[in-house]
Amino acid sequence: MTAAPPAYRLSVSVPPGDLRDALGPLPEDVELLEWDLDGPAPRRHIDLVVRPNVRGVAPLEWLSTVTTRLVQSPAIGFDGVAGVLPPGHTLANAAGVHEDSTAEQVLTLVLAAQRDLPDYVRAADQGRWSTRLSPGLSGRTVLLLGVGGVGQAVEARLAPFGATVVRVARTAREGVHAASELPSLLPDADVVVVVVRLDASTVRLVDADFLSRMRDGALLVNVARGAVVDTDALVAETSTGRLRAALDVTDPEPLPPDHPLWRIPGVLVTPHAAGATPDATPRMARLVRAQVDRMLAGEPPLNVVVRS
Amino acid sequence: MTAAPPAYRLSVSVPPGDLRDALGPLPEDVELLEWDLDGPAPRRHIDLVVRPNVRGVAPLEWLSTVTTRLVQSPAIGFDGVAGVLPPGHTLANAAGVHEDSTAEQVLTLVLAAQRDLPDYVRAADQGRWSTRLSPGLSGRTVLLLGVGGVGQAVEARLAPFGATVVRVARTAREGVHAASELPSLLPDADVVVVVVRLDASTVRLVDADFLSRMRDGALLVNVARGAVVDTDALVAETSTGRLRAALDVTDPEPLPPDHPLWRIPGVLVTPHAAGATPDATPRMARLVRAQVDRMLAGEPPLNVVVRS
Repeated sequence: MTAAPPAYRLSVSVPPGDLRDALGPLPEDVELLEWDLDGPAPRRHIDLVVRPNVRGVAPLEWLSTVTTRLVQSPAIGFDGVAGVLPPGHTLANAAGVHEDSTAEQVLTLVLAAQRDLPDYVRAADQGRWSTRLSPGLSGRTVLLLGVGGVGQAVEARLAPFGATVVRVARTAREGVHAASELPSLLPDADVVVVVVRLDASTVRLVDADFLSRMRDGALLVNVARGAVVDTDALVAETSTGRLRAALDVTDPEPLPPDHPLWRIPGVLVTPHAAGATPDATPRMARLVRAQVDRMLAGEPPLNVVVRS
Repeated sequence: MTAAPPAYRLSVSVPPGDLRDALGPLPEDVELLEWDLDGPAPRRHIDLVVRPNVRGVAPLEWLSTVTTRLVQSPAIGFDGVAGVLPPGHTLANAAGVHEDSTAEQVLTLVLAAQRDLPDYVRAADQGRWSTRLSPGLSGRTVLLLGVGGVGQAVEARLAPFGATVVRVARTAREGVHAASELPSLLPDADVVVVVVRLDASTVRLVDADFLSRMRDGALLVNVARGAVVDTDALVAETSTGRLRAALDVTDPEPLPPDHPLWRIPGVLVTPHAAGATPDATPRMARLVRAQVDRMLAGEPPLNVVVRS
């Protein structure tokens, strides 16, 4: 007798690549498919579709060829998704996957800028040994704009450095200032770290007026989304040398080769690299596996952020 | 009647510059002199002489023209001082002044190297947006060689990053491995941070054998003294790309413009800038003021490290 083909209780699709390997063996009654959403779905129904990791708003239109119980995004941010997700789908974000590596990138950018590392790299490339005083982080005031998962992970890493952290969110709560207080808070900050979600209330939140209230020589750090900052206003305030910036996200993105931000001394740009560590794939695999386990157990999925 | 000139209970000399301003007003019965030890002393006896902040072994020979109760160094390290301090003096180091800024520089170097910041700076200068996976710090193993004030300050700042810290000192104690265990510990470290004092037991401690036991791709960070590392051996292991390094101290120092270390991809050099923040002068002023207060109160000085 040959064994009957397994009766699958759950179908899961993942994009081709590392994630499939990192998932490890799934239960025998879970069907694992490969699909990167660049064409029609391989089945008319897939319980869990894992979106590929692409920049910006991922192409989601081929989801109209399939019914799903859950679409899993590999990103924390989901700005723009509600407008392009075909009807009838539920999308979960990747909360828990990228907070540590994003916070690590924030500290990398803050420390590099506050200790003049970019200039030391350029001096080293010229064989030049020349020490100067750098502002440092100890004793400085850091305004943390956003108190979600990334904000909390940033604050935990800032804590031992002897900086004063001022928390700001949309609305005030215990230990957190309201965004409406920014005009009076910004002049006292040496470093402003932007870790808010991009939505209608935060697009261009960091505009010419916001920047004009920052103190001379202060540092703006953005690891949220480029569109939270008015790029032209930032170019204006940094090209004079009045403000400095360290940006892991930009608007537009990728930043074109001839963009002025690349050329301004005091502006450090990294190419949306906050999540680009070896931790991302195994952590994403753990989240997908958790969603599979919850579906098999009849429990609601984690991290649901959009229903269309 | 005019007031008699004050009878000084204590004389203090400081080098010309910021420190004098940062000291603020001293008690009326303390005489404050300026002397930077580049010629004969302005008095035959000065109770407290503050050494100028110069690189390497400061010129101390002019101390033979004066008697003192205490010579205060602006540095933590005092390698070589015992050999050049004229007889009859007691030297205190600057423990407590530079630990925070040195630990901050360690985290700056570790994060910059682990997140490929030097390459991103170079890419930005060419207007090039190109993301790659970087090893990061989360989940890595950091071997901390030295558990003094700087080592403790480094460990406190590493703690929230999710790295495993392995402590090593000359001798084993609770939670600390002995240096004799290095051969078995080095192969498991992703990052080795050197924060030991330079003395006979640590000169060239990081030699060809030490480096050969480090795993492929590992990062050596040195903020101690250049001579703790065998520079030729480090050049050999980094120029092949097998190891990486981030160095705030080098041997020789300053590093000459044509030195190979400047040119090796994967080697980041900063010019002994660990203490180069605005905090250094006010902290040094607080230490000098504390020494003055203790002398006036008849208490023993802080931080005594050498008696000649």
